[in-house]
Amino acid sequence: MLQLYFFPMACSLSSRIALLEAGIEAQYHLAHIWTKRLVDDGGDFLRVSPKGAVPVLVLENGERLTESAAVLQYIADVKPEVRLAPRPGDIDRYRLQEWLSFVGAEIHKAFLFPTFWYKDDGSLAKPRARIIETLSVPAAHLAGREFLVGDAFTVADAHLTWTLLLLRPAGIDIAQWPPLAAYLERMQARPAVRRAIAIEMALRKTVAA
Amino acid sequence: MLQLYFFPMACSLSSRIALLEAGIEAQYHLAHIWTKRLVDDGGDFLRVSPKGAVPVLVLENGERLTESAAVLQYIADVKPEVRLAPRPGDIDRYRLQEWLSFVGAEIHKAFLFPTFWYKDDGSLAKPRARIIETLSVPAAHLAGREFLVGDAFTVADAHLTWTLLLLRPAGIDIAQWPPLAAYLERMQARPAVRRAIAIEMALRKTVAA
Ligand SMILES: N[C@@H](CCC(=O)N[C@@H](CS)C(=O)NCC(=O)O)C(=O)O
Ligand SMILES: N[C@@H](CCC(=O)N[C@@H](CS)C(=O)NCC(=O)O)C(=O)O
Repeated sequence: MLQLYFFPMACSLSSRIALLEAGIEAQYHLAHIWTKRLVDDGGDFLRVSPKGAVPVLVLENGERLTESAAVLQYIADVKPEVRLAPRPGDIDRYRLQEWLSFVGAEIHKAFLFPTFWYKDDGSLAKPRARIIETLSVPAAHLAGREFLVGDAFTVADAHLTWTLLLLRPAGIDIAQWPPLAAYLERMQARPAVRRAIAIEMALRKTVAA
Repeated sequence: MLQLYFFPMACSLSSRIALLEAGIEAQYHLAHIWTKRLVDDGGDFLRVSPKGAVPVLVLENGERLTESAAVLQYIADVKPEVRLAPRPGDIDRYRLQEWLSFVGAEIHKAFLFPTFWYKDDGSLAKPRARIIETLSVPAAHLAGREFLVGDAFTVADAHLTWTLLLLRPAGIDIAQWPPLAAYLERMQARPAVRRAIAIEMALRKTVAA
């Protein structure tokens, strides 16, 4: 069975959404990303992955895969019939990779990461100014489209949804991009997305930040 | 013919390396990433891509693809026989995606970007402290391995090579990770890598920073 190391409401949420959307049963292990302890048994998360970051997906053969873009494509390809990713070779597969990179690099690492990780730092003015431009890219793309890639939900939507959920705690009002606000509402209406968020919001309360 | 919008020694260097390694002829357009002007004809780079960032790959059908992780996989798949990427479905394809994400998010966006883009900012202490940890990940992986993925050069090596070349201008001494220093030397000994760097270093002098 696949196993996912996660921290509630961290970027591993997209991987949980993908697993639930695909109907893949998995084991979930809560890894505390600040203390690097495993909540199950107090073990050392750095022995699971020296990066000390979630998500970590443990494959059936025991190999460990990190980085949301890779983990999400792996999960999608376990059940190609659910079509959480376009077929490899299809031009839309590169579009999927393009969005996974944009969300993971430009929204997550250039903005959310400094905001929550360097949170006591007075120096976030530049990332905050830049995120306004950055978010206009998916907003323009989603005006008149239901999903990021093609005409169905993909793992790129799972990943964008996670970043959009964090805008409010990051102090950014999504209402300034009506296409993004409408998109987030549509995504949150999906049963798998709703279930993933409910599970992680409940667990979030059990871990100190 | 494929076309690549690039800025000399910016992250589009990896895409040029991939094109040269694959022996793919392409047209190259210099886009000034600070002024957003095209050097050829003074045109507006934002009309090529609203992101205003390189790389932008123009496909044979005129579509434009952005984000290094997507552009590099696209280029690799144009000539599968050169094996710049493992076959889709192969576990090593996910390892390639894992490294492309790590380089693009953790090295490029979390460190190089603030260093060069917010360069007048006094607030780079945290990204600078963190990059030391970050670089220990590929250093440990490359101790005793020739390439990032499998036993041949892939586009992930092109991308890591670019980031390693920028460590010196970013004020980080690569000598503290002997496996990375040796790897960079090996990569720079490759004719395509050497040629790509020579072309872009010459062009770099023609554009104001
Ligand atoms: N590039 C990675 C980012 C992973 C990441 O930053 N995870 C965060 C939670 S959202 C984490 O575990 N941080 C702990 C740390 O970096 O020490 C990905 O896309 O998966
Ligand atoms: N996530 C993008 C990053 C692209 C990027 O940051 N390009 C830089 C040069 S290395 C750029 O053109 N910056 C101009 C800007 O962002 O305004 C990728 O992986 O391709």
